[in-house]
Amino acid sequence: MPSTTLASITKALYATRQQTPLVHHITNYVTVNDCANATLAMGGSPIMADDVREAEDIVRISAALVLNMGTLNEDAVSAMLAAGAAANAAGKPVIFDPVGAGASALRNQTVQRILENLHITVLRGNISEVRFVAGCAAATKGVDAADADGMTDTQAAALARQVAQQLHCTVAITGAVDYISDGQRCFALHSGTPALAKVSGTGCMCNSLIASLAGATSDALVAAIGGVLCMGIAGELAQDHSRGSGSFRVGLIDELSRMDGATLTERAKLHEI
Amino acid sequence: MPSTTLASITKALYATRQQTPLVHHITNYVTVNDCANATLAMGGSPIMADDVREAEDIVRISAALVLNMGTLNEDAVSAMLAAGAAANAAGKPVIFDPVGAGASALRNQTVQRILENLHITVLRGNISEVRFVAGCAAATKGVDAADADGMTDTQAAALARQVAQQLHCTVAITGAVDYISDGQRCFALHSGTPALAKVSGTGCMCNSLIASLAGATSDALVAAIGGVLCMGIAGELAQDHSRGSGSFRVGLIDELSRMDGATLTERAKLHEI
Amino acid sequence: MPSTTLASITKALYATRQQTPLVHHITNYVTVNDCANATLAMGGSPIMADDVREAEDIVRISAALVLNMGTLNEDAVSAMLAAGAAANAAGKPVIFDPVGAGASALRNQTVQRILENLHITVLRGNISEVRFVAGCAAATKGVDAADADGMTDTQAAALARQVAQQLHCTVAITGAVDYISDGQRCFALHSGTPALAKVSGTGCMCNSLIASLAGATSDALVAAIGGVLCMGIAGELAQDHSRGSGSFRVGLIDELSRMDGATLTERAKLHEI
Repeated sequence: MPSTTLASITKALYATRQQTPLVHHITNYVTVNDCANATLAMGGSPIMADDVREAEDIVRISAALVLNMGTLNEDAVSAMLAAGAAANAAGKPVIFDPVGAGASALRNQTVQRILENLHITVLRGNISEVRFVAGCAAATKGVDAADADGMTDTQAAALARQVAQQLHCTVAITGAVDYISDGQRCFALHSGTPALAKVSGTGCMCNSLIASLAGATSDALVAAIGGVLCMGIAGELAQDHSRGSGSFRVGLIDELSRMDGATLTERAKLHEI
Repeated sequence: MPSTTLASITKALYATRQQTPLVHHITNYVTVNDCANATLAMGGSPIMADDVREAEDIVRISAALVLNMGTLNEDAVSAMLAAGAAANAAGKPVIFDPVGAGASALRNQTVQRILENLHITVLRGNISEVRFVAGCAAATKGVDAADADGMTDTQAAALARQVAQQLHCTVAITGAVDYISDGQRCFALHSGTPALAKVSGTGCMCNSLIASLAGATSDALVAAIGGVLCMGIAGELAQDHSRGSGSFRVGLIDELSRMDGATLTERAKLHEI
Repeated sequence: MPSTTLASITKALYATRQQTPLVHHITNYVTVNDCANATLAMGGSPIMADDVREAEDIVRISAALVLNMGTLNEDAVSAMLAAGAAANAAGKPVIFDPVGAGASALRNQTVQRILENLHITVLRGNISEVRFVAGCAAATKGVDAADADGMTDTQAAALARQVAQQLHCTVAITGAVDYISDGQRCFALHSGTPALAKVSGTGCMCNSLIASLAGATSDALVAAIGGVLCMGIAGELAQDHSRGSGSFRVGLIDELSRMDGATLTERAKLHEI
């Protein structure tokens, strides 16, 4: 499968660069600029708009929607719900990042409101966030209670698959190893570098990459694997041109803007699990 | 005229560096950091403040005001109207960027509120935004309905001139070619590079450059041409030091901070039209 | 004392990198991304959350709190007061940056609300901001009314000491020379470069550095000197790798991420005053 998958990802990347899909972001103010530049580097066109009064209008002209609860406030959540409903109605992909799920009651309630009201196309988060979502989605089913960091490969893959089935969506758990599942198939990605964790917003940028691809392909699994893979490979390449975490971050955007099918194919460490 | 204009721009640039005018920004949270650093690179001093309760106080100590509706919300619009009125009353220059005009009813209404209540000194936008403003300012006059991208040089120059006359201001239409008019004269700028369109916020930064210059010269046309020209030339120079869109963006600020009269004079591609 | 101090700072830096303390920021949207990356470069872990409904939850899991009034609005101030009270109750360090104190009535009132309701651990600001705070804290005592820029070394050190005594905290006045006092001892730092003033947010990042260290040491004076010193030395080193203010800013984060005890000890220009 991986070689077929890589061909599909490459095709999606080139389609994104040709179509420049508009990607609507309702996201945090910490990493929003990196999200905008990552979207552009991927070939998409970013638009950030979080006033509920224009949520529907902006969704109408967009090809994909990113909802990221990094910095919460009631106005943004209202805009998320309105934009998400409009995207659902129009069949446009919705990428949801439950940043900090588990860290506060407000974040937990917000995850519940989003999941109760919207159909998510791709859920992306770290393992503890996805574990929290699993609990929300089916509290009684119970999720492995072991420490997230101590999860085995098999357990993490099972978690991705389980949440994907619960939410009828594609799930991307990102970390040292990434696990991506549409509920049936599950892929483990070993591309990347620990330096990615020392830069703010690599997860948020990943949402933008996924959304940019999802704006040009109807295959959410391809978009999710493609976005996570591009970030991981860009990280590996950026390390060769960096003196520290400042230039590494600049290099990330450089490498995303230079990404092509040959690089993807050559460097992808991807296997079905 | 161009050589006189370049001398005036150089003079304004050096005056900005000497006087460090405070530039008040009410702008979007996506590119605000780039605006701050672009202002500093030009020689100005940025202050971002969008609470209506301090709008007048901040205008009082500022030399110029930037209003940018990139990410809208009612609080920011209230602050824009209050700050703009205070700037008008004090005769301080107001630079307005109608980001996304035409993309939502909320943005369209906001443009109308701004134009009905404030006198703008410099309007800067891309061609479709300026076309929308032209429609607002005088719907019955009619603007060329042809596709913006398909406009000829002559049509774009006519649009800049027309809107400048309608609003009694200076208009800068930025794009592959830039058109800048005070209603009488109109200049076309061919400086720049397509790479500028692959970085978020080059338009927003341009507002900051114009405002920094406008804080040190009373000639709005000189400030507008100067700001757009500095961005275009910085883009050309940054390309020589970049590996992709990340380092290009860093290079832009580098080149702005190094900009001088000799570089402006040597590289400017500017003619009256 | 300085050599003991440098040993303590080095110890705190390494403790920060080992413990990765969570640093809660309620800060402005202009420089927030730089604050996040500076925190990571120092070894801390940033979390930005400014909704009053989650202020207590986030403080509960954090090791330090930064309050920065760079871009004010009533919601953020409410969150600052709630988070600050929770941090005070839990004995967690609070770093306060009174950005723009003196520039508007709103900012002045906000400083007063913060100081009346919270105990600050470290106050960091430029000399005019700290002078304003001195006036708030004890208007009748009177602060030297001479122009801030004209203050002598002795006067600036006296101001730092006075405000530290008034507020029972550590005060860091940053500028061409930095003055840091806990009310008893006072240190002058001559590390740094004028280029730091040409990048937006070096003061804000400094707050994050201090808070990261304060999350791993209970000695606020060590955290304050350490944060300011790291920024100054990073600035000196970044200058060697920069072409202008864009690459200088990138270099700052690079150098912070590479900072170690040997560099600190070799380059620190620090004396007790």
